Amino acid sequence: MSAPCHCSAPKANIPALDDKYLSDDPAHPANLICELCRLFYDNNWVTGTGGGISIRDVKGENPNLVYIAPSGIQKERLQPWEMFVVDLNGEKLLRTPNECPQELTKSYKYKPSACTPLFMSCYTMREAGACIHTHSQSAVMCTLLWGDKVEFEISHIEQIKALPQLKLNESTSKIEKVGSMQYYDKLVIPIIENTPHEEDLTDSLQEAIRNYPGTTAVLVRRHGIYVWGEDVWKAKVYNEALDYLLELAVKMKTAGMDTVRK
Amino acid sequence: MSAPCHCSAPKANIPALDDKYLSDDPAHPANLICELCRLFYDNNWVTGTGGGISIRDVKGENPNLVYIAPSGIQKERLQPWEMFVVDLNGEKLLRTPNECPQELTKSYKYKPSACTPLFMSCYTMREAGACIHTHSQSAVMCTLLWGDKVEFEISHIEQIKALPQLKLNESTSKIEKVGSMQYYDKLVIPIIENTPHEEDLTDSLQEAIRNYPGTTAVLVRRHGIYVWGEDVWKAKVYNEALDYLLELAVKMKTAGMDTVRK
Amino acid sequence: MSAPCHCSAPKANIPALDDKYLSDDPAHPANLICELCRLFYDNNWVTGTGGGISIRDVKGENPNLVYIAPSGIQKERLQPWEMFVVDLNGEKLLRTPNECPQELTKSYKYKPSACTPLFMSCYTMREAGACIHTHSQSAVMCTLLWGDKVEFEISHIEQIKALPQLKLNESTSKIEKVGSMQYYDKLVIPIIENTPHEEDLTDSLQEAIRNYPGTTAVLVRRHGIYVWGEDVWKAKVYNEALDYLLELAVKMKTAGMDTVRK
Amino acid sequence: MSAPCHCSAPKANIPALDDKYLSDDPAHPANLICELCRLFYDNNWVTGTGGGISIRDVKGENPNLVYIAPSGIQKERLQPWEMFVVDLNGEKLLRTPNECPQELTKSYKYKPSACTPLFMSCYTMREAGACIHTHSQSAVMCTLLWGDKVEFEISHIEQIKALPQLKLNESTSKIEKVGSMQYYDKLVIPIIENTPHEEDLTDSLQEAIRNYPGTTAVLVRRHGIYVWGEDVWKAKVYNEALDYLLELAVKMKTAGMDTVRK
Repeated sequence: MSAPCHCSAPKANIPALDDKYLSDDPAHPANLICELCRLFYDNNWVTGTGGGISIRDVKGENPNLVYIAPSGIQKERLQPWEMFVVDLNGEKLLRTPNECPQELTKSYKYKPSACTPLFMSCYTMREAGACIHTHSQSAVMCTLLWGDKVEFEISHIEQIKALPQLKLNESTSKIEKVGSMQYYDKLVIPIIENTPHEEDLTDSLQEAIRNYPGTTAVLVRRHGIYVWGEDVWKAKVYNEALDYLLELAVKMKTAGMDTVRK
Repeated sequence: MSAPCHCSAPKANIPALDDKYLSDDPAHPANLICELCRLFYDNNWVTGTGGGISIRDVKGENPNLVYIAPSGIQKERLQPWEMFVVDLNGEKLLRTPNECPQELTKSYKYKPSACTPLFMSCYTMREAGACIHTHSQSAVMCTLLWGDKVEFEISHIEQIKALPQLKLNESTSKIEKVGSMQYYDKLVIPIIENTPHEEDLTDSLQEAIRNYPGTTAVLVRRHGIYVWGEDVWKAKVYNEALDYLLELAVKMKTAGMDTVRK
Repeated sequence: MSAPCHCSAPKANIPALDDKYLSDDPAHPANLICELCRLFYDNNWVTGTGGGISIRDVKGENPNLVYIAPSGIQKERLQPWEMFVVDLNGEKLLRTPNECPQELTKSYKYKPSACTPLFMSCYTMREAGACIHTHSQSAVMCTLLWGDKVEFEISHIEQIKALPQLKLNESTSKIEKVGSMQYYDKLVIPIIENTPHEEDLTDSLQEAIRNYPGTTAVLVRRHGIYVWGEDVWKAKVYNEALDYLLELAVKMKTAGMDTVRK
Repeated sequence: MSAPCHCSAPKANIPALDDKYLSDDPAHPANLICELCRLFYDNNWVTGTGGGISIRDVKGENPNLVYIAPSGIQKERLQPWEMFVVDLNGEKLLRTPNECPQELTKSYKYKPSACTPLFMSCYTMREAGACIHTHSQSAVMCTLLWGDKVEFEISHIEQIKALPQLKLNESTSKIEKVGSMQYYDKLVIPIIENTPHEEDLTDSLQEAIRNYPGTTAVLVRRHGIYVWGEDVWKAKVYNEALDYLLELAVKMKTAGMDTVRK
C-alpha cells in the first residue's frame, strides 16, 4: 500500500461545533493527525487499525496540550473531532470524542490510543512535540532478523544524515539536539521485547529512552516502532528516514551483507 | 498496485432511478461496495476482474438484504446500480442490474458473483455482515509455502490483536465475538483445496467454517482468501490485518523463520 | 510505482479543434489511451517513455480506425490530440499530431509508436480491438528466469480463469473466443527473442501468433510483453491478469517452486 | 511509497508577490520542481528530506537562470516561492526564499541544497538543462551489490534505449547527444565513493563526468544517484529509465544472473 494523493490539500471539514479543540487551520494538531494517518495508511504502516500518532500543540497557546488519536479505529478514516486532548501538566483529560453529537460519532464508544502512556513517556522524558507509532513491516522484520540482539545498527548510509544528533546537556540534564548525524555515524536503535498489553511496554520503553540518550526511536520486537521528534514534522521526517533505513537493512541482511561497515 | 486516493470522498453519482436499492448516502451498501473495490484494486487484490465483495444491510430497514457485486466485471469500475440484491430469507433475488436502463449498462448481461453461495454460507453460518474475497498474492503464496498443510499458522505478532476472539455460545449454538485475539495467541486459518468451479468450493468452505469455530477467514489453495465480519468495516479491518500477516509470513518463511514462536 | 487515483474521472480537456478524431466522450479511443497510459505508468509498466497502446474504434462508425500513441513520449502525460489515426484498410494514415496547432504541440515532431507494425499484426491476424505493450519487470524477469525456454507456462492458479479460451474456427479459419480458460488449464505464452529495432520483431511475433492459436499475448525476451483482446477493456483485463500471473511466477520460481503443477 | 495522482494538475498557488522568479505557468521551473518532487517522493526517492532537484530555465529569457530546491526540506511539500535562483554566469545568487514574507515561510532559515556544487558541475561541464538527485534504494543496493566495482554495467535490456547516446564533438570539445542507446549497448554508470559532506563529492563527480563522456548519470556508493539531461523532461525520463534498470539489476543479481550478456 502506498502513495498519498497530493492533488488537493485535505480539507478540514469541521462541523460548526462549539469546540475550542477544533480548527479550520490545516496545521492544527487534530487536522494534522488525520492527514498523517492517511499518509501512514498508504505506506502500510497503520493498516488494520494498527499504529497511532499523537501531537503536542507546541506552537499553540498552551504547548502542554496533547492530541491523541483514539484506539482501534481505522486510521485512514479518522476525523478531527475524534481526538482525545490531554494536558501534560497532571495528565488531565480535557476532551473526549465521546461527548460529540451523535450524528458525528454514531454513539461509538471511544478509548484513547493504547499507546497513550508510551506517548506520554516521550513527551515527559524527551520533551517531544509529536510521537508516531507504526506497525511497519520493515521494522518488524528488522526485529526478527536481529532476533538475538537488543540493538539494531546501521552505518555509512547517506540517509542517516536525516536523523538528529542528540546529546545530554549536563547543566540542564536534558537531551538536546546538537545537529544531525553524520554519514559515518553508527545509528543504534534499541529493541525492546513486546508484551501482551501495549501499556505494559511503558517500563521497558522508558528504560530504553534512559539508556539510549542518543536515540529518537525504539523498536518493539514483533510489533513495530516508536519515533518522536521536536515537532510533528521532525517526527514525521525521522520516522520516514528510519523506515527507509530499516527497509534497506532488510534488503542488505537478506543479501548477506552487514549493515555496519567495518 | 496500491494507494487509494483519499482526497475526495467518492461521490455516489446516482442517476434519478426509481430504485429503492440505490441511495445518495455514501454509507449505503451499493456505494460502499464500489468504494471498497477501488481500494482493493489498488492493493492488487481484485485486479483482472478477480475477487468480490458482498454487504448485508445490517443497519438498514431490512437487515436481511444482501448486496452482491456482479461476476467478471472490472472491480475498480463498478457502479452502484450494477449490484444484485438478495433477501437472505429464502434467498429470493430482489434486484438484478439487468433491469437497469440500457444507457447505464449498455445491455451488458450481468451474472451475480460466482462467490454468491460462499458469501451466503458466511451469512447463514456466522451471521456475517459482509464478506470479502480477494486474490491477494500473499494469500496465494502462503497456500503454496504451506503447500502440504491444511492450516496456516502464525503467532506472537502484534497485528494479530486486530482479529476477533470468537467462541461458541453453547446456549444459542452461535459463534460470538468475545473480544480480540491476544499477541501470544496462535492464529490458525484453514486452507481448503481449490476446485475448477468457484461454487464447488461451497461444501469445503462450510466444512472449514464448522471445523474452525475460531476463524473469521478461509484460505483457498492457489486461489485467494475469504474473510467475513460482523459488519462491512469489521470485515475490511480483518481482511487488512490478515493480509498484513500473510505478507509478513511470506517474508519470514522466505528468510527461513518459523511463523509460530516455540 | 503504482496506484491510479480514482477520485475523479480524468476529463477530456479537448480544445475546440475542428477534428473528427477527437471527442468529449471519455470512452473515445483517444481519451482512453490517455487514461490507460496513466494507469500503466503507475504500475511501472510504461515508465521512461517505454511501452505503448493502440485502440481500434470497434464501436465507432468506422471500426477500422486505429488510434496509436506516438513514440518516445512520456506515456503518463499523453494528450488526446497527440494520437496517430490509421485506417486498417490499406493502412492509410488519416491523422498525425504533427498537424496540430503549435500551441498544443510546441512543434514537437511526432512519430507513430515503433510498435505500430506489431499492433497491426494483432489487428489483422486476430481481429483484435486493442493492443497493449508494456515493459513490465515481471514480464522481463520471467523471460530471464525461463531463459533457455521459448514458452512461459503456469497452471492451477485461479487467476488463469480471467484469460480467454481461444480456438480456431475451421470453417472461417479465424481464431475465436469460445469461453474462459479453466483453473486446471496450462497457460502457455510464447517467448520471442528481442531485436535491436522494435519493428524487426514483426516476423517472429507473427510466427508466434500463428504457432500459438490459443494465446492472447507474446513475451519478448529482455523487453516486455504484447497483449491484445477483442476490445480495449478485454485487452486491459487480459494484461492485468497476465501481469498478476507473471509476478506470482517470479515469486514461485524464486522460492524454488514449479509454476506447472504435475 | 508510490503513485502520483494525475487526476488534477497541481495548481501553482502563487501569492501575489512582486517576484519575477514566480509564475502561474505550470511549466515554470519553480512550479515543475514542486510537481516533480511530489512524484519523486511517491517513488521513495526523496523521502526523509533526501535528494534534490535543480532546473535551468533553458526556454526562458535568460537560459542561465538556475532554480534550486532548498536543503533539508520535505521535498513533497515544497512551494514555488521556496526556491533559490542563481545565474550560471558567475554563479551569482539572484533570489533567496529568506526574503519571502514571513507568513509564507514562517521565518524558516533556508539554505540552498547541499547538492548545489554538484548540480553546477553538470550545468557547466555538460550544459545540462536539469539535474536530479535521488536516494533511490535500487541505486544504493546496486552500489552495494557491485561493492568492489567502480562501474555499474547492464546490457541487452530494451529499456536501455531510453538513454542517450553521447559523444565528444572534437571540433567544439563538447559532449553532444547523437541519438539513443541501442538494445545491445552496454550501459556503464560510474560509481564514486561517498564523502561525509555532500559538497566534497564535487571533485570525484567532476572526474567521473570527465572520464565517462558517454554517461548521463553518476552513482554514489551508499548514497544514491545523480542524473542530468538536456532539459527537465529528458532528465526526468533518463532518471526513470535508469531507476527501472537499477531495480531490475537488483532482481537479476539477487537471482544469480549477470546483468551483462556475454
